[in-house]
Amino acid sequence: MAPPIDLKTICPVSEIVNKMNSLYGRDLLCTQDWSIDELEKALDLSFEFKANRFDHALNNCLDRRTFFMFFYNPSVRTRQSFEAAATELGGHAQFLEPKSMRLKSAKSAGESIEDAANVMSRYACGIGIRILETALEHYGQGHEMLQEYAKYASIPIVSMAHDRFHPCQGLADVMGMRMHAGKNLKGKKILQVWGKGALVRSWCSVQESILINSRLGMDVTLAHPEGYDLDPEVIKWCEENAAASGGNFEVVHDLEEGYKGSDFVYSRNWMTSGFYGMMQSKGVDAAKKKEIELASMHDEWITTSDWMSKTNDAFFTHCGPVDRNAEVTDEVCDSPKSIVYDVAENRLHVQKAIMALTMAKI
Amino acid sequence: MAPPIDLKTICPVSEIVNKMNSLYGRDLLCTQDWSIDELEKALDLSFEFKANRFDHALNNCLDRRTFFMFFYNPSVRTRQSFEAAATELGGHAQFLEPKSMRLKSAKSAGESIEDAANVMSRYACGIGIRILETALEHYGQGHEMLQEYAKYASIPIVSMAHDRFHPCQGLADVMGMRMHAGKNLKGKKILQVWGKGALVRSWCSVQESILINSRLGMDVTLAHPEGYDLDPEVIKWCEENAAASGGNFEVVHDLEEGYKGSDFVYSRNWMTSGFYGMMQSKGVDAAKKKEIELASMHDEWITTSDWMSKTNDAFFTHCGPVDRNAEVTDEVCDSPKSIVYDVAENRLHVQKAIMALTMAKI
Amino acid sequence: MAPPIDLKTICPVSEIVNKMNSLYGRDLLCTQDWSIDELEKALDLSFEFKANRFDHALNNCLDRRTFFMFFYNPSVRTRQSFEAAATELGGHAQFLEPKSMRLKSAKSAGESIEDAANVMSRYACGIGIRILETALEHYGQGHEMLQEYAKYASIPIVSMAHDRFHPCQGLADVMGMRMHAGKNLKGKKILQVWGKGALVRSWCSVQESILINSRLGMDVTLAHPEGYDLDPEVIKWCEENAAASGGNFEVVHDLEEGYKGSDFVYSRNWMTSGFYGMMQSKGVDAAKKKEIELASMHDEWITTSDWMSKTNDAFFTHCGPVDRNAEVTDEVCDSPKSIVYDVAENRLHVQKAIMALTMAKI
Repeated sequence: MAPPIDLKTICPVSEIVNKMNSLYGRDLLCTQDWSIDELEKALDLSFEFKANRFDHALNNCLDRRTFFMFFYNPSVRTRQSFEAAATELGGHAQFLEPKSMRLKSAKSAGESIEDAANVMSRYACGIGIRILETALEHYGQGHEMLQEYAKYASIPIVSMAHDRFHPCQGLADVMGMRMHAGKNLKGKKILQVWGKGALVRSWCSVQESILINSRLGMDVTLAHPEGYDLDPEVIKWCEENAAASGGNFEVVHDLEEGYKGSDFVYSRNWMTSGFYGMMQSKGVDAAKKKEIELASMHDEWITTSDWMSKTNDAFFTHCGPVDRNAEVTDEVCDSPKSIVYDVAENRLHVQKAIMALTMAKI
Repeated sequence: MAPPIDLKTICPVSEIVNKMNSLYGRDLLCTQDWSIDELEKALDLSFEFKANRFDHALNNCLDRRTFFMFFYNPSVRTRQSFEAAATELGGHAQFLEPKSMRLKSAKSAGESIEDAANVMSRYACGIGIRILETALEHYGQGHEMLQEYAKYASIPIVSMAHDRFHPCQGLADVMGMRMHAGKNLKGKKILQVWGKGALVRSWCSVQESILINSRLGMDVTLAHPEGYDLDPEVIKWCEENAAASGGNFEVVHDLEEGYKGSDFVYSRNWMTSGFYGMMQSKGVDAAKKKEIELASMHDEWITTSDWMSKTNDAFFTHCGPVDRNAEVTDEVCDSPKSIVYDVAENRLHVQKAIMALTMAKI
Repeated sequence: MAPPIDLKTICPVSEIVNKMNSLYGRDLLCTQDWSIDELEKALDLSFEFKANRFDHALNNCLDRRTFFMFFYNPSVRTRQSFEAAATELGGHAQFLEPKSMRLKSAKSAGESIEDAANVMSRYACGIGIRILETALEHYGQGHEMLQEYAKYASIPIVSMAHDRFHPCQGLADVMGMRMHAGKNLKGKKILQVWGKGALVRSWCSVQESILINSRLGMDVTLAHPEGYDLDPEVIKWCEENAAASGGNFEVVHDLEEGYKGSDFVYSRNWMTSGFYGMMQSKGVDAAKKKEIELASMHDEWITTSDWMSKTNDAFFTHCGPVDRNAEVTDEVCDSPKSIVYDVAENRLHVQKAIMALTMAKI
């Protein structure tokens, strides 16, 4: 493993960071794996980075360090924001597409994850991995692969979105809500609502978001049409989170009930649980076509100004990229209550904070 | 938008740069959009960067800033020189291929340019875009797309070559001529001549070059076979430029007249205006084949030593990459009067100057 | 050529480096091209970089310089370690895939290597090139191309593995042996043994390794089944190297004889000399299939604990990536005597040393 910088020798460090040694070397596959205190430290540092983007004491904390980004699936925002995060901390993120890597698989000879992870730990300070549905055979397989990398690597593994979770997005969502409604989100009602659309999206963003929101004591209402259930284990964790935090978590299929009194509306398309099976039996294109067909049967599942008028003057938020006039109307997305660009920007600050805390020795 | 560096606090700035605040935040889609004074400032700074490549006061002016490069079409020189330019200014250029980006189009759902440009403005200090014929349906469409990005982005958009213009190349060409013939190009005759070849090249470089050359008061002769007319609007601008600058602009189809008395010879292949229609009806490969067939009918359109002997001991220049023994013979290209490598090098200096002036707060 | 840094003005330099001006500007296509003294300087600096990874006097010696990496064939380790090497020296390595470059070839118009190399020499401090069997028509063609780049470029060309040689790997192998057995390798017996497997590997790594090992006075035994002969010219050089160094070099087809008394065991799969012809006549896939078929006939050619027990308590080494349970068993590869991860890490240190010595003016 690359010898870490001893920051104490090169810069004064802010007080908050001094307390964070617990996070050095840690993986981040899901916010659920970190304690509330740890997540709060990451969020505090994210706000510091936002306020002092180029003149924070930790500005150069990855000086000449390498971060590997493994994109099993393509991405724009995630790649842009992770690569910029490494650059802004003085390091460099390598954009790697494993499709051209000779890794061992059921079908072909090649290098084992054990060897790849061990060697990469000699070169870099951390590894980000993105792997979604179309690169997988069943739900959960991506998470297992991240766990296998984490087992063998001596440097942190950070999810850049995988089939189950998207921790950096979940933290960026929270940061956006706090920017506009204050730090204490306890008791605030958030509607997390399925939206129609043609993008056939992963469960990872919405699952991460309901997990962290229920953990912070919010009043979380998950609304979707019948047939769009999420991972039952995640739902169970949300219920446990709400019980522990004094918040609330419920699932509804009724839009009226969902919007009523909300302080935040978060809309997002996601696929049915039938997608993987369909993809295996009929191929990706047929599976996507089927999902688009199914989604088109729920025309009223779009966030409009009418629906927003039922809320408690809610902020509109979205994990991006927005599928306009499918998940949400232009009118709502461009309104003064929309915080979608701030949330997108926060990805950068959150990822800098996570990289600084887990990959730079403080 | 990324908070810019206040250079005054980190380094002494050269006098010339102090006067340039007008350019901060500006787009560059075509040299025609900038005043002569602004272009001269960029050229002056380009010469400064050439003279002090790694020890100029603006050396680190993009320290840890991100520049996005969008390559809708591949490139070697443009990618190499833009990425090196960002590196030499202390920043980092991300190489992005939009083919894998989920952007909205007539045919598919995805993110709007409005949203993409707004979000990217939160991450980066500038965006370069390259989009040429084979990625387009009609001439002018690439320029419209750059204008749309420029409309929504709060950071500068710089053309890295698009269907109509190639401003960085036009400036590098001028810089090359000045290196060898002095700063004042007024009244110098330049022949800008079509060359045969199999590369089916865009109009962007030659159009940019005749625009800026006519603006600087040069005596510009554009020579090509019948059927190789360029954009009529650009031709009209060249005539207006020449009238305003005291220069001259004319179009000829006769090589003898073109070469006679020239101080500079600039050769370049380009396609007919029929290319787009052919590509739409028959496909890219058929359209290219047709263009190569057409071009092969003009065997005498190659710059040779014989032709060069008709000139005023002219310098030979080319926007690169050179298609040897099609556009120009080896003998001319390798002669002591050839300035093609200097012009290629100048891309780096010019792009550093443009990035420093438009993206770093001075 | 990019004006080099005068290191004397920016940092104190270690004594060893002060003596190394001879290497500035030098290409590295094969260790055989450098003198023993030059190789020892590179190895000494590699050890210095390993010991002082981020605080060596040459730490920033490629500050804001660009290194071009040309990958005609894909790679993971080589790309990761070269890009990290440039980053750790303060520079930036551009990842370039020539398949999208408009370079001239027998089949298509485009830029000549002469022009490409001349222009790139204006932008960068060095060029790395990787080109292997599947991108070539005959053995030796890749080496010729590197020589052509070296002829026209005024900056160093470094092999990142080509059909004949892999100098950075050869040096990393030596560094690994010295880490575990001391600097003086004279007289130590190394078995360099063919291993079965499905990866159809190049000759470059093993040829580089037998060349440098025989040059350092080791007792080199090359063992392979009949039909797996390497380049006869390389074999001749190995014999000459051994004669000059007081070492020994022999080729055997018997495993018993190979393992007996070895201090190091280096296993590696490689293709037969028939691969190129088969690829030309039947295509890449058929050629690979044939090679895998041939290799599968040599079941006993795998390094096992049994075989290791015949050695002088040998270290196990491999140039990576390892094809486990084909070239070597898990048991041997994971044993305390295995140095494969150290060898892989050494690629980084060796490449930093080569870049510092050849590309930064001392």
